[in-house]
Amino acid sequence: MPSDAPTIAGAPPQAGPLAIICGGGSLPGAVADAVARRGRRPVMFGIKGWADGAVIGRYAHHWIAIGQAGRFFRLARAENCGEVLFIGTVLRPPITQLRLDWRTIRTMPGLIRAYRGGDDKLISGVARIAESGGLRVVGVKEVAPEVLVPEGVLGRYQPSQRDNSDIARALDVIAALGPFDVGQAAVVADNHVLGVEAAEGTDNLLNRIAELRRLGRVTSPPGTGVLVKAPKPGQDRRFDLPSIGPRTVENVARAGLAGLAVTAGSTMIAEADAVTVAADRERIFLVGLREDTAR
Amino acid sequence: MPSDAPTIAGAPPQAGPLAIICGGGSLPGAVADAVARRGRRPVMFGIKGWADGAVIGRYAHHWIAIGQAGRFFRLARAENCGEVLFIGTVLRPPITQLRLDWRTIRTMPGLIRAYRGGDDKLISGVARIAESGGLRVVGVKEVAPEVLVPEGVLGRYQPSQRDNSDIARALDVIAALGPFDVGQAAVVADNHVLGVEAAEGTDNLLNRIAELRRLGRVTSPPGTGVLVKAPKPGQDRRFDLPSIGPRTVENVARAGLAGLAVTAGSTMIAEADAVTVAADRERIFLVGLREDTAR
Repeated sequence: MPSDAPTIAGAPPQAGPLAIICGGGSLPGAVADAVARRGRRPVMFGIKGWADGAVIGRYAHHWIAIGQAGRFFRLARAENCGEVLFIGTVLRPPITQLRLDWRTIRTMPGLIRAYRGGDDKLISGVARIAESGGLRVVGVKEVAPEVLVPEGVLGRYQPSQRDNSDIARALDVIAALGPFDVGQAAVVADNHVLGVEAAEGTDNLLNRIAELRRLGRVTSPPGTGVLVKAPKPGQDRRFDLPSIGPRTVENVARAGLAGLAVTAGSTMIAEADAVTVAADRERIFLVGLREDTAR
Repeated sequence: MPSDAPTIAGAPPQAGPLAIICGGGSLPGAVADAVARRGRRPVMFGIKGWADGAVIGRYAHHWIAIGQAGRFFRLARAENCGEVLFIGTVLRPPITQLRLDWRTIRTMPGLIRAYRGGDDKLISGVARIAESGGLRVVGVKEVAPEVLVPEGVLGRYQPSQRDNSDIARALDVIAALGPFDVGQAAVVADNHVLGVEAAEGTDNLLNRIAELRRLGRVTSPPGTGVLVKAPKPGQDRRFDLPSIGPRTVENVARAGLAGLAVTAGSTMIAEADAVTVAADRERIFLVGLREDTAR
């Protein structure tokens, strides 16, 4: 790379084009932008039915279907990609709806085992398939750390001492559920565990708290309580990191909570500026927890 | 007691009238019926705003407000009650909305501590208040065991081997959440933890699973998965036992689950016959787990 290339400080050594397998949402675009700013060429592989054409269309891109590992490897080789990143929302599809190609079928025993397990097992199965094709699976932290929540308070509001104690309790709940491959988020208010996320997702969890409050079934006063999101203990951080965006902040406010805390360095943030603006507007705190406090 | 009294076999020795502090729902009536069938006089103390007048009106009864321990003790003494049972739904009221009498205020420091804790702590605080008034607090198991779910399969359908493995996993989830005073129920399907109950209640949990299924976000086929309800580890079984009724069974069916499992001997059952009929009609299993399997 010429020394006057417009890359940012601390960029990793040039490693050839990066294959980005893109699920839904805007995060694949944010990651590709960061990768490109670091002087590396992103090649987008949009998953049919999930990826947004407008998001992946800004870079070189291909469409693939879940189960078509062979097609993906052929294309990635042709694009000269040595590494692959998975990013964006893909919910576990019904196994009967997969259209599997031969390459994938050869790895089926492992895939079926993966389906019987929780998400962690599904994910490590996918990683094994990718690595069987000779690609190295990388995580966001390696190739685009700027899309991760940084450590410390973002925005104008700080957590109170009570908020910090609620945060600690929520982290304990998430840690306790780690062995079950579930629960990347919990809501705690004034020491009461109000909600635990399983298959429903964070927005659903927050809507539920808002509804319980409306019905008078959450009795801590408005402006009490925290949402905490953290990767499951032992989670492979190359996949499926928790993420937040402006909507998360709005839902935290609608649920009458004081703020939200997420693990710094392993929570993705979509539209970071808009998130901070929303937090200040809604008068809630947003804090990136040091990874070691977050267990 | 004359030997020809119409009491049932195994009835406990006559112990004077039993004070029953009644929250909402039909369970206080079912318990009073069982107590009366055993030859003991129930005296109902309906909690204003919660108890159903039609339920408590069938027996000697009084109305009390939460926070009026002094009034309760006066009335219980006048009725010659030496023991008290708490039964039915009462959600933790906002502490600022309590109308406290002098007797209660004297125990306030303990009550405030109870409010800071989870439900278990609130409950043990209430028990301490009752015992400070010279009443013995008893549980359903002592005075009306027939309103508890018995051990074994109820109805026509049996859990499969996969269902049993889902039941075991759900019990592990509930046990893991025990230290947090939350989570008397969990839904597991084909080894995936789909939902964990916190403040929202079991009906809400089941409605959420039904909705996730409708949206295609639960991919195990209809008729897979279990709802498991169990007391929290260390829970004081004189209070706040989990309960099921015909609606629970209907919601389990609507959520597309195979059945439900609850801890025998410490789960109350409202309208047991109707519950079994509903389970058979909906083709779901209903099983009372041995207390030791249920940890």
